[in-house]
Amino acid sequence: MTMLFHGLSAFPITPTDPEGRVDPDALGRLLEPLVETGVDSIGLLGSTGGYVYLTRAERRRAVEAAAEHVGGRVPLVVGVGALRTDEARALAREAQAAGAQALLLAPVSYTPLTEEEVYQHYRAVAGATDLPLCIYNNPGTTHFTFSDGLLARLAEIETIKAVKMPLPGTSGLEEELARLRPQLPADFAIGYSGDWGCAEALLVGADAWHSVIGGLLPAPALKLTRAAQAGEMAEVRRIDDALQPLWSLFREFGSLRVVYTAVNLLALTDAVPPRPILPLSPGDQERVAAALDVLRDLE
Amino acid sequence: MTMLFHGLSAFPITPTDPEGRVDPDALGRLLEPLVETGVDSIGLLGSTGGYVYLTRAERRRAVEAAAEHVGGRVPLVVGVGALRTDEARALAREAQAAGAQALLLAPVSYTPLTEEEVYQHYRAVAGATDLPLCIYNNPGTTHFTFSDGLLARLAEIETIKAVKMPLPGTSGLEEELARLRPQLPADFAIGYSGDWGCAEALLVGADAWHSVIGGLLPAPALKLTRAAQAGEMAEVRRIDDALQPLWSLFREFGSLRVVYTAVNLLALTDAVPPRPILPLSPGDQERVAAALDVLRDLE
Repeated sequence: MTMLFHGLSAFPITPTDPEGRVDPDALGRLLEPLVETGVDSIGLLGSTGGYVYLTRAERRRAVEAAAEHVGGRVPLVVGVGALRTDEARALAREAQAAGAQALLLAPVSYTPLTEEEVYQHYRAVAGATDLPLCIYNNPGTTHFTFSDGLLARLAEIETIKAVKMPLPGTSGLEEELARLRPQLPADFAIGYSGDWGCAEALLVGADAWHSVIGGLLPAPALKLTRAAQAGEMAEVRRIDDALQPLWSLFREFGSLRVVYTAVNLLALTDAVPPRPILPLSPGDQERVAAALDVLRDLE
Repeated sequence: MTMLFHGLSAFPITPTDPEGRVDPDALGRLLEPLVETGVDSIGLLGSTGGYVYLTRAERRRAVEAAAEHVGGRVPLVVGVGALRTDEARALAREAQAAGAQALLLAPVSYTPLTEEEVYQHYRAVAGATDLPLCIYNNPGTTHFTFSDGLLARLAEIETIKAVKMPLPGTSGLEEELARLRPQLPADFAIGYSGDWGCAEALLVGADAWHSVIGGLLPAPALKLTRAAQAGEMAEVRRIDDALQPLWSLFREFGSLRVVYTAVNLLALTDAVPPRPILPLSPGDQERVAAALDVLRDLE
């Protein structure tokens, strides 16, 4: 069961119309290459999937459409974060009913939350289904920072099996993994998001790469993942170098805006980000096109 | 019209059941003392009013109940913040239809927003009605920080008439007001929230105090406001001193948790905060009771 949170987890956007109604056909077009390439899991309705911008009904429609399209060929991990605990519990139950194999839960906040509040929130949502759950630790969007102690306490909850970590700041990846491992169960998966640092994370022993680019360009992302898992440094460097222009754009504009532009450029959907988030300017869109061009030469 | 955003704006909680259904009778019980005391406006569905935790339908029910209860005796300023621009526009239109006299808009975010995105968001929501609108600048919950330049640009939009500022950090209140005034229209109102610093803000010339305690204990809040507006330093100090135990609790636990406890202790409603936010522990509730006791002696 815990292999679910290992390897490459690919996070696609959720294409919608401007009013936030999910386009199931466009979602299918985005999912098919992920399935064909053989990513290790699909992270539906993550931050890239714009889960917080969708109604509960649309989130259910997205899971149903994805489950139908994927048909069990790749495990489906579904984001069920919400500001209210009862809403997140309902989303978890609905995700399971709609065909999710696992859950991803971020401590979405408005009023800053205490550790105990986050603990009780996770316990309540983890108890709403029997699906394995991954803690989504992303202070850049949730504005909550998990202490090691809280992660250890949450890892004792039966269905909580993994954490998706942000790239560490001052302390390095290797140090962070060495610090966290002894505090967590042996089969607890530690993965990372922040695409530009994830090859490095896998090289130093992280279990998973929760990847934005994997949701759009699964082939180079999976190649990079497998090279890093095998410790093939030269191959990792070669692929990571080709991705540098995209990583630069991700850091400059946020990966969400860049990946919408890329999806439009690749003619997979003309969906745009939910307002207030704006599409990139024409000049910046050209930079995304150039970054994608670099990848065409990648074998 | 701009006097609307001057003086004491009182922000009550929005009492609901545990599932988030508004209790209109309890809301009426909370609003009546505000009207009787004569606060300058009521800030419904602010952060203290838990607006982000309520559905659009419940937010409409809250405005309808408040408008019916207040019956035009005090202006009703209604929070219409939402993650999506279309949702915030709909909330603005519904607030006007339900009886709001003015709007309060926070740049609620998940994906961090750019200045241009926030500008376009405000322009779209300000254009949804002809009601005057107050910018709700509260980085502690929205995680967006307004630059002076953005405030100046927003102040050019016809219906945008005021800003509700957080207490400044390193730079002082007087310096901030002196810096902002020349960049904003003469009739643009600058108010503050952060109850423990607002007497000081009024003393140095702020136009409004957006007050949590004013939504619960309007008499001392209004007395403090009038003393500060009149520059009666000794009277300001006397009332502010009596409120110090509450200010300490606000800073320690966040004003929302404290004010729910206080409302329960005063037997106005047994509503609790929306989960994941937890009620204070019994020991901390006793501290709130003691802080309220101090205020009984205040003439």
